[in-house]
Amino acid sequence: MALRLQKPPIVISQGDPAGIGAEVILKAAAAMARRRRIPPMAVIGDVAAMRAAARRLGEVPEPLDWRPGEALPTLRRGLAVMSVGRLSAAAYRPGKPSAEGGEAAYRYIVEATRMTMRGEAAAVVTAPISKEWLNRAGHHFPGHSELLARLAGTPLWRMMFVGTKLRLALVTVHIGIAKVPRALSAEKVYRTIALLARHLVERLNVSGPRIGVLGLNPHAGENGLFGDEEQRIIVPAIRRARRSRIDAFGPLAPDTAFARTDGEFRFDAAVAMYHDQGLIALKTLDFDHAVNVTLGLPFVRTSPDHGTAFDIAGRNRASAGSMIAAIDYAWRASAV
Amino acid sequence: MALRLQKPPIVISQGDPAGIGAEVILKAAAAMARRRRIPPMAVIGDVAAMRAAARRLGEVPEPLDWRPGEALPTLRRGLAVMSVGRLSAAAYRPGKPSAEGGEAAYRYIVEATRMTMRGEAAAVVTAPISKEWLNRAGHHFPGHSELLARLAGTPLWRMMFVGTKLRLALVTVHIGIAKVPRALSAEKVYRTIALLARHLVERLNVSGPRIGVLGLNPHAGENGLFGDEEQRIIVPAIRRARRSRIDAFGPLAPDTAFARTDGEFRFDAAVAMYHDQGLIALKTLDFDHAVNVTLGLPFVRTSPDHGTAFDIAGRNRASAGSMIAAIDYAWRASAV
Repeated sequence: MALRLQKPPIVISQGDPAGIGAEVILKAAAAMARRRRIPPMAVIGDVAAMRAAARRLGEVPEPLDWRPGEALPTLRRGLAVMSVGRLSAAAYRPGKPSAEGGEAAYRYIVEATRMTMRGEAAAVVTAPISKEWLNRAGHHFPGHSELLARLAGTPLWRMMFVGTKLRLALVTVHIGIAKVPRALSAEKVYRTIALLARHLVERLNVSGPRIGVLGLNPHAGENGLFGDEEQRIIVPAIRRARRSRIDAFGPLAPDTAFARTDGEFRFDAAVAMYHDQGLIALKTLDFDHAVNVTLGLPFVRTSPDHGTAFDIAGRNRASAGSMIAAIDYAWRASAV
Repeated sequence: MALRLQKPPIVISQGDPAGIGAEVILKAAAAMARRRRIPPMAVIGDVAAMRAAARRLGEVPEPLDWRPGEALPTLRRGLAVMSVGRLSAAAYRPGKPSAEGGEAAYRYIVEATRMTMRGEAAAVVTAPISKEWLNRAGHHFPGHSELLARLAGTPLWRMMFVGTKLRLALVTVHIGIAKVPRALSAEKVYRTIALLARHLVERLNVSGPRIGVLGLNPHAGENGLFGDEEQRIIVPAIRRARRSRIDAFGPLAPDTAFARTDGEFRFDAAVAMYHDQGLIALKTLDFDHAVNVTLGLPFVRTSPDHGTAFDIAGRNRASAGSMIAAIDYAWRASAV
């Protein structure tokens, strides 16, 4: 194994060039440049687009042309940007998405993923893309996670969300409530518990993590009175996890699971059965700093928990809080 | 109309005599006795049981025999208790529920409701009962709300929850998630909005209340991608409310509806489609002080948001926070 002189950087895919990606990346870089310890990072995107955003913002690190293998500038000197192709100026007009931009956003992700899988990058942070414009560019993925899972050849993955107060993984994500009960199985619940436990141990150094598993129904079904999914699906999944020496417990009554009477949850992380069950709690506790983490990939991938926000792009109104949290989490989780 | 010399008291049904009802009532009374303005209140229950609880606690107002029509003692002198029958000592042994206790709890509610409907009481606050022991005593109601609705002859009622930060009404309550989508209708959603708006105007003096209505599905369905209940059911209900001059809006994405970016919600109260959608947010924000309010009754009824807690009854461990909030809310809402 070759001696590695420098720890590889975190790569940040620029996202849809008409969205707030460049803005939140530059604002995050500016905030991080003022720290004593600065995570090494490089943007995978378009240096001209990043420079246009930097001119609009002022007071942010200068975007610098960079290639893998070259020495990485620290943020105090500037922000390394690896250009993938070259965008027309029209493609990075704020708030004016295009198929060209959708195609570029796709290629940034592909390149960031490849670099990470080759060991040239420590982790991937993705700025937001537009599902619609990804599709219009001919790439038919419901979102980032599915695309990354495909690129990494990972059939089994889950979405995890991390706030300052709560970590949770979701068994199901973007489906209607009517479809949730049939989409659950003991296997799926168990896999979610196992992926989450593994992430906590391997990436966050939590030893013997305690995983709280929510029920599906009010009061976790109240002994079958309000649904039998707890007994049929969730209890067997928890039992299987415990047989695999994972300290899982539940099913917890969903409404009181996140009610901290003494300032602390009873678990290191929770497993929620559906999107809003987990995210109502997470976003209610912690709106601006939630990080989306993909479990099950062979590398660490995070993203801020917001979209392209085409409506406010280019107006210097986007908050970088979630992007900063996403970069910090990626750095911490990939340092292990 | 006869001149009323004294505003009628709030009546508090003692709940299951083996639960924490007497304890939280006495602790609430003790806390309130130290205030400058004390709400007039009387317990509908059993004076011997209340005295036994008072002896265990110490430092609480003395339970005093009282009958409607008699002058009401202030809490500084003692706590008025109207006895409904007379319990055997076995029936108020803490943590040892019985059919006798279930029957008594039922009769306390019936009496408190009758007094309120006759104008002898201003509002009803109910201490917790045990569904199981209510049933074993031959009274087959799923809970307080159904019993009160029956006693009041109210076919249309809804559960509302009030925390210090959030008020919300639920369209559906104690059913499994699998049954929620089919249990919704535009009529039911509209009725919930209307009952909630009326309560806010008539009971809390909120003028022109803004009612935020949640979607059912993740991202409120994302234009039909994750379910069509928003378009089929919720949007028509909101339109109907607006035609009735109620300032209702939505459907809101459930996960971000309660995320206050600037410390304030955009609504005076919210309508949630199912139990956990509302209560995860409410209890996460505000665990110990939530109040349950029944909308649609011809009088004000509140209760603390906890159960009989047989496991800790008699040990002086129960918090009276939610009972205090329930009494305060009943007093405020019935004063208008």
